[in-house]
Amino acid sequence: MKLAVLGGGQLASMLAHAAHPIGIRCSFLDPNPDACAAPMGEHICAAYDDPAAIGNLIHDADCLTFEFENVAQSAVEKLAERLPVYPPPSALYAARDRLVEKRLFCDLDIPTAAFVHVDSAADLPAAVEQIGLPCVLKTRTEGYDGKGQVVLRSAEDMASAFDRIGHRPAILEAFVHFDREVSVIAVRSRSGECGLYALSENEHREGVLRLTRNLARDSRQPDAERYVQRLLEHLEYVGVLALELFEVNGELWANEFAPRVHNSGHWTIEGAHTSQFENHVRAVLGLPLGSTASLAPCAMLNLIGGIPPVEKMLELPYAHVHVYGKQPRRGRKLGHLTLRAPDDRTLADLLVKARALVAQSENG
Amino acid sequence: MKLAVLGGGQLASMLAHAAHPIGIRCSFLDPNPDACAAPMGEHICAAYDDPAAIGNLIHDADCLTFEFENVAQSAVEKLAERLPVYPPPSALYAARDRLVEKRLFCDLDIPTAAFVHVDSAADLPAAVEQIGLPCVLKTRTEGYDGKGQVVLRSAEDMASAFDRIGHRPAILEAFVHFDREVSVIAVRSRSGECGLYALSENEHREGVLRLTRNLARDSRQPDAERYVQRLLEHLEYVGVLALELFEVNGELWANEFAPRVHNSGHWTIEGAHTSQFENHVRAVLGLPLGSTASLAPCAMLNLIGGIPPVEKMLELPYAHVHVYGKQPRRGRKLGHLTLRAPDDRTLADLLVKARALVAQSENG
Repeated sequence: MKLAVLGGGQLASMLAHAAHPIGIRCSFLDPNPDACAAPMGEHICAAYDDPAAIGNLIHDADCLTFEFENVAQSAVEKLAERLPVYPPPSALYAARDRLVEKRLFCDLDIPTAAFVHVDSAADLPAAVEQIGLPCVLKTRTEGYDGKGQVVLRSAEDMASAFDRIGHRPAILEAFVHFDREVSVIAVRSRSGECGLYALSENEHREGVLRLTRNLARDSRQPDAERYVQRLLEHLEYVGVLALELFEVNGELWANEFAPRVHNSGHWTIEGAHTSQFENHVRAVLGLPLGSTASLAPCAMLNLIGGIPPVEKMLELPYAHVHVYGKQPRRGRKLGHLTLRAPDDRTLADLLVKARALVAQSENG
Repeated sequence: MKLAVLGGGQLASMLAHAAHPIGIRCSFLDPNPDACAAPMGEHICAAYDDPAAIGNLIHDADCLTFEFENVAQSAVEKLAERLPVYPPPSALYAARDRLVEKRLFCDLDIPTAAFVHVDSAADLPAAVEQIGLPCVLKTRTEGYDGKGQVVLRSAEDMASAFDRIGHRPAILEAFVHFDREVSVIAVRSRSGECGLYALSENEHREGVLRLTRNLARDSRQPDAERYVQRLLEHLEYVGVLALELFEVNGELWANEFAPRVHNSGHWTIEGAHTSQFENHVRAVLGLPLGSTASLAPCAMLNLIGGIPPVEKMLELPYAHVHVYGKQPRRGRKLGHLTLRAPDDRTLADLLVKARALVAQSENG
């Protein structure tokens, strides 16, 4: 079997790594000549809209999938006439536009912060009046890792806010004073079978995920599962989806979802019976899903901007090192480190050491 | 870092699969144009004694290792002058000659079946007299998977025995009426640090490994560890080594050892904190070892001669499929299937189903 992947970054690389033992070849379309998935399959180095390159990508492929959601819907819909394309284009569409996404949460009775549609600087005062301060102005599309958003704490912040997001269509959202951030990674097969991973508890800094822990029997797990299942079923979803949530006074509020494998699910490589990557591959290719049960308590730390010496990371007991083969750059995700410990106490002790090690080389 | 590997079969492929996330590139020398490790690294398709090819293989490499032990010692020793070569050539030498190997077991006080050196058909009657019937005539070199051996049950079997092993130097060994076959996978780092995996219990049929289970707290574990540690230390070994043993009336007798990652250790990919493949890579490159502790009860079934439909294998809960990308051929190892279950009872139930599935496609 062959899987075609739009994108050749670390997510594509980890998909291919999981697909290889099952006997599934991958091809990647990525304009970056140094695409880090290249060693794991066939790298087609061309623009995403190059018709000949797309032809090569999907030649002989059993399915097309994505490592990112920012794909032109029309292009994807055309491809879907030629081969199975999963996740479904409608899910990409909903995920790439914050307004569509938030309205979907509302339609599905998934709690979310109050929001209002804002198309121009002129709309802003009324919107702030409605939502209240503090609040967050976010571009409808192409925001990630904290980019494309501005926090408004006072009326004076309004003046520059639209400048700072590049005068693009936006939503204004109430600022959420959350107690913690969690995400739930879920998978749905072509036949509608669903799998749900243990809740991930996430620490962000400067808008970027730094640390994820898998949680055992968390009290919010059932709510998260109900919400994500509504999404999966409404979207007739196929593949892995990540729903990010805030916990506010014991309730979960949806923040956003990603129609793909997700950084907060990297712990599943070592920490679950079947990783999010293998389950995504299985799902999109119409294969049966594997167990999503956790194996052990895990913590995943992102390696950002710099990488500690490999031998120092491997000295940490129970450490699993993933370096993506990318050129170091300030703020860039270059790898991750997963600790899979025999028990919570061991994990907590190791995490202190791992954090210190990662902090030394972190940059951005 | 770069690791050069002599051989490009499934063991090399699994080494490279484990090395990739750590950021280690692999190159393989293998004359087979369809070498199954090829997609996992740089495949140099040439004879093992091609000097230019060897130059390419080790160019930029930090270490040279092997996926098989049948390498000319002189060639390896010459390479060892140019870069670190692990496991050490002396260990390859001991493992590829049954006479040297058996004498080593005796020197190290590791129990083993009675044996005697037999160079020609003329030596055989006296040897049979000494060892007794039944006994096994085995070529000193190049025997594996039951090849190069003949069981002698009566005096009449002597006449054809030397013919059947190709008139090659041999040993005659007492036939061992064993209660079970086990193996212990061990790893030793450049600095002398050792790691020991849980004992593997192995089922062979027609000389070929069919099934391996990892054992929790087996009563023979301490003996196996003592024996394998004597080997590791005597050989100043670096890398993974597998020692195969028979259990006879509650005692372990060494059968043979393999100076490499081993089929009976494939369960460690899913079943141990660090797989035999990753620990071999870490050891030979001078990196710290990872934990060898087991994660869960596992069973590994070889896929021989034929492969069940992938979707049928993935339907088995907790199944992990490994297909090697080799052309099917009677008796050929084409892949393996590992069941990693939450408990022994679940494993036993799954194993019944998995055996039936594998048996349907098995061939040889």
